[in-house]
Amino acid sequence: MKPKPHKSAIDVIAFDADDTLWHNEHLYLTTHDKFKQLLRQYHNEEWIDQRLYETEIRNLQHFGYGIKGFTLSMIETAIELSEGRMSVNEIQMIIGFGKEMLQAPVELLDGVQETIAKLAESYKLMLITKGDLFDQEAKIARSGLGDYFSLIEVVCEKDLDTYKRIAAKHGIAPKCFLMVGNSLKSDILPVIAIGGRAVYIPYKTTWIHERVVEEDLDDKQYVTIEHISFLPALLDGMKINF
Amino acid sequence: MKPKPHKSAIDVIAFDADDTLWHNEHLYLTTHDKFKQLLRQYHNEEWIDQRLYETEIRNLQHFGYGIKGFTLSMIETAIELSEGRMSVNEIQMIIGFGKEMLQAPVELLDGVQETIAKLAESYKLMLITKGDLFDQEAKIARSGLGDYFSLIEVVCEKDLDTYKRIAAKHGIAPKCFLMVGNSLKSDILPVIAIGGRAVYIPYKTTWIHERVVEEDLDDKQYVTIEHISFLPALLDGMKINF
Repeated sequence: MKPKPHKSAIDVIAFDADDTLWHNEHLYLTTHDKFKQLLRQYHNEEWIDQRLYETEIRNLQHFGYGIKGFTLSMIETAIELSEGRMSVNEIQMIIGFGKEMLQAPVELLDGVQETIAKLAESYKLMLITKGDLFDQEAKIARSGLGDYFSLIEVVCEKDLDTYKRIAAKHGIAPKCFLMVGNSLKSDILPVIAIGGRAVYIPYKTTWIHERVVEEDLDDKQYVTIEHISFLPALLDGMKINF
Repeated sequence: MKPKPHKSAIDVIAFDADDTLWHNEHLYLTTHDKFKQLLRQYHNEEWIDQRLYETEIRNLQHFGYGIKGFTLSMIETAIELSEGRMSVNEIQMIIGFGKEMLQAPVELLDGVQETIAKLAESYKLMLITKGDLFDQEAKIARSGLGDYFSLIEVVCEKDLDTYKRIAAKHGIAPKCFLMVGNSLKSDILPVIAIGGRAVYIPYKTTWIHERVVEEDLDDKQYVTIEHISFLPALLDGMKINF
């Protein structure tokens, strides 16, 4: 049987993992709440949030993304905001918050299991995720989805150069590469910039660091869908000109 | 010109990075010393070392290898050993130790630059290192050696399964794969176990976690050299039966 034309058009579908395949941002939000509880005797919540965010961004150059760096940033922020009045037992609690995040069960988003299983029958699937290698590999293992992906890349940053390097390394022509993810900044814009295709599936919350300004989206060609389960039908009907 | 026989015998030479290509263990030793200075009012040095090591090993399951996890383990140990009497400013200093380690210049071992440049003319070179992705990528970039390596793998653990997976992923027959490194546990024994070849270059110090017992080395076929600069001559003269 002759393959359908769309199958030759796209060679690889790559997925982001955190908040695309499984819930992740809620872990950070829950931990933010615990952190604010711990510090609310010193400052108001908004200020705590702002200072934690500033510490995180300042520390990205040292720690990169991921829970271990986030935990170190929480400790630093707590010491600064309490002006040294925090007890070391409270610091111990913050390390505990980090460990809880690292051990949290992986909860797939609704429809992910079926959609990934279905797409794996017709496409080569890839996973591209950023963060701590150790943590991301543990989550892939716990997700039960690992076997559907023939290529897995854990990277430090998801920018134009990263996608170029991945495409070159695996001999993928950018126009035959489709990226699916919940971050316009990391999953959509850089992929379009290298001539790839992108499907945006917004998650209910987006970390402020991943947000983009409206103008950056002008004239950008990508498709937004509400739910991952719409993806197979989109691909079936796709006229390769979005 | 017909290639020399040894060139077809080995397809890929893979190198460990920390303490094989550049100095690393001294960063940990220097930091251990600073850490002991901070805690010597509470305990003797030997006990501090032992407790820090126990915390590190216990936390490997949460943090994996690398400086960020080590920093969190130092904080935890300090709180435990001081029984909460440590000041938060001292915790802040420990975070500073971690950042200093992450920013430390990459110092190549003597002879590495010339040897790697020479071998890259005749062999496909690969780098296989464990630890934090972000930190290892930064060190590879700072080392100036990145371009000599056609394949770079940062992994969570260097065991038999990891080497099997890497060989399969890149289509390398184990008998055509040579690993060079300073850890019998991580670079030599698992490579021999999959049918590969290994060259051991001991470093002046070995982290206790990487040490192996004598019996594990019985009947194992590998070559020990004192200095990386002996490697090209060894490969030239190699009769493929070591």
